[in-house]
Amino acid sequence: MNDKNTAFSAIEWTGDSLRLLDQRRLPAEELYLAIEDAPAAATAIRDMVVRGAPAIGITAAYGVVLSAQKHCAETPDDWLSRVESDMDLLAAARPTAVNLVWAIEQMRACLRTLAADPVEALLVEAARIHREDIAANIRMGAYGENLINKGDSVLTYCNTGSLATGGYGTALGVIRSAWVAGKLQKIYACETRPWLQGARLTAWELLRDQIPVTLITDNSAAFLLQGGQVQWVITGADRVAANGDVINKIGTYQLAVSCRHHGVKMMVAAPLSTLDMAMPSGDQVIIEQRPDAEVLELAGRRVAAAGADVWNPAFDVTPAALVDCLVTEAGVVYAPDSEKLLAFSKPQQPGD
Amino acid sequence: MNDKNTAFSAIEWTGDSLRLLDQRRLPAEELYLAIEDAPAAATAIRDMVVRGAPAIGITAAYGVVLSAQKHCAETPDDWLSRVESDMDLLAAARPTAVNLVWAIEQMRACLRTLAADPVEALLVEAARIHREDIAANIRMGAYGENLINKGDSVLTYCNTGSLATGGYGTALGVIRSAWVAGKLQKIYACETRPWLQGARLTAWELLRDQIPVTLITDNSAAFLLQGGQVQWVITGADRVAANGDVINKIGTYQLAVSCRHHGVKMMVAAPLSTLDMAMPSGDQVIIEQRPDAEVLELAGRRVAAAGADVWNPAFDVTPAALVDCLVTEAGVVYAPDSEKLLAFSKPQQPGD
Repeated sequence: MNDKNTAFSAIEWTGDSLRLLDQRRLPAEELYLAIEDAPAAATAIRDMVVRGAPAIGITAAYGVVLSAQKHCAETPDDWLSRVESDMDLLAAARPTAVNLVWAIEQMRACLRTLAADPVEALLVEAARIHREDIAANIRMGAYGENLINKGDSVLTYCNTGSLATGGYGTALGVIRSAWVAGKLQKIYACETRPWLQGARLTAWELLRDQIPVTLITDNSAAFLLQGGQVQWVITGADRVAANGDVINKIGTYQLAVSCRHHGVKMMVAAPLSTLDMAMPSGDQVIIEQRPDAEVLELAGRRVAAAGADVWNPAFDVTPAALVDCLVTEAGVVYAPDSEKLLAFSKPQQPGD
Repeated sequence: MNDKNTAFSAIEWTGDSLRLLDQRRLPAEELYLAIEDAPAAATAIRDMVVRGAPAIGITAAYGVVLSAQKHCAETPDDWLSRVESDMDLLAAARPTAVNLVWAIEQMRACLRTLAADPVEALLVEAARIHREDIAANIRMGAYGENLINKGDSVLTYCNTGSLATGGYGTALGVIRSAWVAGKLQKIYACETRPWLQGARLTAWELLRDQIPVTLITDNSAAFLLQGGQVQWVITGADRVAANGDVINKIGTYQLAVSCRHHGVKMMVAAPLSTLDMAMPSGDQVIIEQRPDAEVLELAGRRVAAAGADVWNPAFDVTPAALVDCLVTEAGVVYAPDSEKLLAFSKPQQPGD
């Protein structure tokens, strides 16, 4: 175990470059890629070498360090404009998660106050973002665990663990904490088509940490809840709008609808960096459409009939009214709405 | 086009044996298997060479013909007990769909009234079951189409078409009829994990008949309904209990919950042979649990982390209260319940 309380590091600064665990290859292969410059970091984000809202924010922050390192060395008279151009590239790598833009903004603010060596200062800032994300997750884990009763079973979605964050995880951090506290009877994970983050990543990560997990197909979640054996559905978020609407992996909304129908509680665990107070509601979000091939193919092999059209949104919007509680590193917001989130976010907005 | 109004025959009696289209190989390969005896027919049902409640009933009926053909020739003094034993084998091949048991009962009744050549008489009976299934589907298609407004879009689930029935299809028969009538704006199909009947079979079958289809992952159905672009979710059934509870492919219940939440109408299309008046409610049904490998692997390749446990029920139970209408070959039952189904089934029970 390392300081992230998990058996591996998905994102690691190695002294002069960034090392990413290639999440496209898991669980078949544990392959690490060396990321040497900002365009490579942007490509890694776009191609989902690294995914998960907090993780892509941290990767982008290190990407800015890589950019400064390169351009300060190669074009010392003109490094700043090149770094700024790389920051735009990084911010545009994926459209939905707000953490990416948030992390770039942190780095931009750091750049504005720079006196001497920008590389060193930016690295300190990126490492701070990384470290604080882990600390936030551990605090979230404690707040979330506190809501879970002994003997409860939980269902989680996508991957929100050490692979999706700086370490420990958001929703999976809560589950990790509850497991360590001996509270959980059973942990179910949806396989999460089309990318199978649940089957490939969450199962891998939990088993790696000796935590048992039961996989289900995404379409069997409601039938599982119908049986009364699950007390909490716990997910992360890619963005939480100012009114509490949750933008997260496609399928989250369907789970929230099922939760409400069965009286099962819906917990969303997300750091304050995921909260987008500039977006009034989920209606305004740009939902990324992913390539048809993700649905038509599986593990590189074509499974669907040739000629079929595809609708493949990567995220959906869960209205705040379906969320029982939002767990952050600063505490829990029950039945989140605009008023509560405004009061809650004010003193603790990350970066303050 | 043949008499089933589709471009292929998934189940065909070839004169002295049964020819089945191997649905495990679609859409990559259009492979037909010759089924020579009843155990081979039972294996084909169990291993899902053929699937879909009406289709496995028809296959079992032809399986009884194969049994009589073989045993009358090989052991003319003792053929009947061997055919009876084969009928038990066929009836037990899969536990959830009632059509299988229903078809065997039809064949058993035929056997009891036999005078002379049992093979010929049983073949006439099996062909009748097959032919009447197609006719029932075409009538169901007309009743269902009548409920759909011009410009509606529909979402369907699993495969309920010519591949799942004697021909034409139940839910897909309704969609076929509505398409031909020029009513449908768009047809969405869920891919239907783990076996991907939607991606592999429904898409193949619709495109084969030049009907455009848009695939979605199962977890994106609620988000699609949230957008207000779908007016009907239309599914088949593997069994309808006497109170109207619908036992169907895992995921049907989740769709029904989503329909209710969004005010989208839920239509279940099933022939009377799917109605099980002996089963008071869905609570009594045996839900088949399928192998873990169906979830852990995809197209024969392992996708999930090693060591993960799996919960893989093949079917779920949708309470009658979530079904807006049940479409049968004898007409439509709105908001089905015990009383309506009893009145409805009485004069028209198949085989009468």
